[in-house]
Amino acid sequence: MLAEIITIGDEILIGQIVDTNSAWMAEKLNQQGIRIKQISSVSDDREHILKALAEAATRADIILITGGLGPTKDDITKKTLAEYFNVGMVMNDDALANVENIFKRYNRPLLDVNRKQAEVPANCEVIVNNNGTAPGMWFNEGGKVYVSMPGVPFEMKYMIEEAVIPKLKTTFKLPVIIHKTILTVGEGESFLAEKIADIEDSLPANIKLAYLPKMGQVRLRLSAYGENDAELQEQVDTYAHRLVERIGANVVALEDIPVEKVVLNYMAQRGLTLTAAESCTGGYISHLITQHPGSSQVFLGGAVSYAYELKESILGVKNETLWQTGAVSSETVKEMAEGALRNFKSDYAIAVTGIAGPGGGTDEKPVGTVWIAAANANKTLIKKFTFGNKRLQNIERSAVAAFFMLITLLRENEQ
Amino acid sequence: MLAEIITIGDEILIGQIVDTNSAWMAEKLNQQGIRIKQISSVSDDREHILKALAEAATRADIILITGGLGPTKDDITKKTLAEYFNVGMVMNDDALANVENIFKRYNRPLLDVNRKQAEVPANCEVIVNNNGTAPGMWFNEGGKVYVSMPGVPFEMKYMIEEAVIPKLKTTFKLPVIIHKTILTVGEGESFLAEKIADIEDSLPANIKLAYLPKMGQVRLRLSAYGENDAELQEQVDTYAHRLVERIGANVVALEDIPVEKVVLNYMAQRGLTLTAAESCTGGYISHLITQHPGSSQVFLGGAVSYAYELKESILGVKNETLWQTGAVSSETVKEMAEGALRNFKSDYAIAVTGIAGPGGGTDEKPVGTVWIAAANANKTLIKKFTFGNKRLQNIERSAVAAFFMLITLLRENEQ
Repeated sequence: MLAEIITIGDEILIGQIVDTNSAWMAEKLNQQGIRIKQISSVSDDREHILKALAEAATRADIILITGGLGPTKDDITKKTLAEYFNVGMVMNDDALANVENIFKRYNRPLLDVNRKQAEVPANCEVIVNNNGTAPGMWFNEGGKVYVSMPGVPFEMKYMIEEAVIPKLKTTFKLPVIIHKTILTVGEGESFLAEKIADIEDSLPANIKLAYLPKMGQVRLRLSAYGENDAELQEQVDTYAHRLVERIGANVVALEDIPVEKVVLNYMAQRGLTLTAAESCTGGYISHLITQHPGSSQVFLGGAVSYAYELKESILGVKNETLWQTGAVSSETVKEMAEGALRNFKSDYAIAVTGIAGPGGGTDEKPVGTVWIAAANANKTLIKKFTFGNKRLQNIERSAVAAFFMLITLLRENEQ
Repeated sequence: MLAEIITIGDEILIGQIVDTNSAWMAEKLNQQGIRIKQISSVSDDREHILKALAEAATRADIILITGGLGPTKDDITKKTLAEYFNVGMVMNDDALANVENIFKRYNRPLLDVNRKQAEVPANCEVIVNNNGTAPGMWFNEGGKVYVSMPGVPFEMKYMIEEAVIPKLKTTFKLPVIIHKTILTVGEGESFLAEKIADIEDSLPANIKLAYLPKMGQVRLRLSAYGENDAELQEQVDTYAHRLVERIGANVVALEDIPVEKVVLNYMAQRGLTLTAAESCTGGYISHLITQHPGSSQVFLGGAVSYAYELKESILGVKNETLWQTGAVSSETVKEMAEGALRNFKSDYAIAVTGIAGPGGGTDEKPVGTVWIAAANANKTLIKKFTFGNKRLQNIERSAVAAFFMLITLLRENEQ
């Protein structure tokens, strides 16, 4: 079963927004065994939309469309769909009731542009939008399914999960596809490839292996295509097991989760608490952790100690350490981590101090020099990293390296 | 002048990575007056790549291709391009020297797969990759320019800025296009549209207005197309001025920068310092600030006080306040902000405490309840917000609202 995604909107084509919707939809559809043939971003332009719809329909059975459903003048998806299907527009009662309810809830007067959002092409089935005013639309024409959804991510996501996927399952007989992801940290793509070359060569034709590198991490994804769920699962598990054995300690998860979630899951299971002392990562480590629901069970909080004074007052780093060894040093990062443990009363702490750049580098400590520590009551691991000269990358790499050091310390304690 | 972007890789089509490259490239090209007709993501599949190249060439003059240049077996872009142009592969000396240097620098043995990265189609001009092993390739065939670049964002970005755009400027005569963005915070898209409807209706045919909403912010983008740079600039400035006058205090910037950068620029110009006391935003506010180079001039740091104990020990929130009014209250957020001012010794502080969800809500304080404070030595602004039930959105909206409150306080002080 093939699908295509068409995103409509000049925003994407002039680069003012990143298309995160498509990746999200692609992942959800893949999990159902629906392959995405192509993702196309086209402009808020009648002719271009019509052409993109017609082209997609020659390649795929399911066409998912997002964007261009807002109340403003540059949103033309709806009337273009009506033209594509050669039908008129009608007012939909459910969609109108939804719009009215939303405006009542927020005590806002209902404007004419908002009421118009409840008008839809006559041949569609409305998917009520529980999170916004623009209705979703399901079309079943010429053996193809077209679904038009708002471009606002959480409105689209809710529709896909609650309405679109259930309806696709009843409309089509879907094949079986199984993915398994192995998350590795601390080793590059080509070295992993060399290490596992013979296993990769031995994969049967129905299993594909993909390398997904990202800032100090490489995810290895096995995808198996076939008919029988249980058989595919067993097949994938066998190869995954071989890869894990070969790669060793660099494997940190056997599921597709971010590295900080690996830490959270592990620590939550054992009732352990964590705090963070961040200098050059500037709150990014704390943010990565706290974006996950339930993180407060593990994470007590931490300090973003950019200035010397805060390193002293919040974390108890000694003034003489800062002035003698500098803020970016083995001694300072040690005192930061141990200060967090002591002052914030957690079982584990991670600390990062470095020069993220682009400014602030010296000959001795160039941009990209980062010291990281992971500590518990018995031990403090300390390591120096030399990253590159890109600020955001240095922040991201530092965070990943800090989590990997914490995992190493947690594992040592396990034994 | 029209361009298309083709991204190659199953990663995007199965949704394991978000295509951030295309938005970035689109923005850079638009600034040069090159419109992006379509962005297409296709799979690591020979036939599909060939077809996408041929289709793009019927619509555009410039075809930018990213991805599929890695050392692993699923990377087939290079040989497919050779097939498309009907040429063989040759070893490129500059590209090989680059690969060898990189491996020497990191003291890694040069593997055969890495050496092969220096092989390119015979008809291309190599763009040396200063940040990685895969060379970029520039093809000029049949009056069209094709550029193939690695999918790794910072490798591609460097190539676009240093090689591709300069070469495009010498290859084509580019038209003039001018964008102007007005950043507004705290008012919804449809209300803005109603407020400025007559100005929008009065726009001449060569100027387009787009609404770009995002988490409590709406960017209004004026785009003017024409021949004469100075005339277009004046025309755009006139309409921008009308929009700004009409919208009033919700306008926070007249350029396309994020709201925290508005704060940083304003405070840096005036030599003011800032700290943050974050509970439910969990480090996100600090991260937004510290991702910007030079932020340490303004931002001293802050606390991520998830646990009660840290609110007390780091910020000096009174134990009785926490137990009598709760962690999510007007009193607590006030003490957090004032504690940050006092303990961290900054001119301004922002504090956020709330229930991000999905758990932790009560009837009295449902998920989405957030208290925010902005303080200086003379005044503390405090406001309650009622957001929705989505964790990440609540975090993002809280951050934007906090920055807007800080801007309000900064403006009050200006007068």
